[in-house]
Amino acid sequence: MKLLEERIRKDGKVYAGDVLKVDSFLNHQIDVDFLCEVGKEFYHIYKDCGVNKILTVEASGIGVACLTAQYFHCPAVFAKKSKTSNIGNDFWSAKAHSYTHGTDNTLIVSKSYLGKGDRVLILDDFLANGCAATAMAELCEQAGAAVVGVGAVIEKAYQKGGDALRKSGFRVESLARIASMSPEDGIRFCE
Amino acid sequence: MKLLEERIRKDGKVYAGDVLKVDSFLNHQIDVDFLCEVGKEFYHIYKDCGVNKILTVEASGIGVACLTAQYFHCPAVFAKKSKTSNIGNDFWSAKAHSYTHGTDNTLIVSKSYLGKGDRVLILDDFLANGCAATAMAELCEQAGAAVVGVGAVIEKAYQKGGDALRKSGFRVESLARIASMSPEDGIRFCE
Repeated sequence: MKLLEERIRKDGKVYAGDVLKVDSFLNHQIDVDFLCEVGKEFYHIYKDCGVNKILTVEASGIGVACLTAQYFHCPAVFAKKSKTSNIGNDFWSAKAHSYTHGTDNTLIVSKSYLGKGDRVLILDDFLANGCAATAMAELCEQAGAAVVGVGAVIEKAYQKGGDALRKSGFRVESLARIASMSPEDGIRFCE
Repeated sequence: MKLLEERIRKDGKVYAGDVLKVDSFLNHQIDVDFLCEVGKEFYHIYKDCGVNKILTVEASGIGVACLTAQYFHCPAVFAKKSKTSNIGNDFWSAKAHSYTHGTDNTLIVSKSYLGKGDRVLILDDFLANGCAATAMAELCEQAGAAVVGVGAVIEKAYQKGGDALRKSGFRVESLARIASMSPEDGIRFCE
């Protein structure tokens, strides 16, 4: 998605330690009009797949998921990273390590909101090592739901997550794929 | 908002301990088409207030904030509950106690995304004791931003938060105001 690559070049900041900061428009301040365009793009890609649910994980996936779901006219469900007091005891759960935050999380989705017959599009802001997306796919497997695709706004294509998911048979589509990046040389996108 | 009251009556579940579970459409599974209607209602209420930014707090406020912001054509910013590795060191912060989760949180917003000249609409899924909204108003005060209103999807009007904020001079608008609720007697809305 050309518009996204341009936006990342313009507003993204690369720091040591493999950090791409895009929190001016994607995951702290959210440029909602721009993310609507992102949502339309995901809809364009997956519109013929019978998607009836979008699954993401709190917190930074929620904006992308909601603004995309409106084009599919389907609900968005966000996996929680901890068991809140009001989720009840009936939930699917899968472990995911977060390299960004250096923590292990257990992703949780109530059994009421993910089940057989669901055709799920998994969405997230970033795809890097693939831990979160893999855990969400596990939640879908537990639930007997079909994963029709995995969509990421930005993929760090030099990390293993995207290709591992593709090898496992998932249709992974990322709107911007970064081939390499560094504070010195900036960002190079995949051809 | 009649449509919302009907939805709460239909799908909301009241549990002991002052819990109203609306996670089938509001804060775990999100009925995005429905929340677009909620967003239009907030736009209708605050459209003449020069809103240029919507502020909420992760995680359950993000859906409401994003789906509302698209009608204002302004960005949504979500306060974080913990300092993530990539937020930097330049942020506003304010303490908020969460009665739902029994934790104290420090809400954080990067100084880059909240400042002088901003006209902020604070939005959240629930308004009860008002801790989160008050903390967000504090963030705005620190930043020198104007708070043009505080909007909640559901207000527990029998708790003190909404009226305390109104007494402090904020324009608080809740789309459904609950006068009382209990597992035995169900939900009664304010007239």
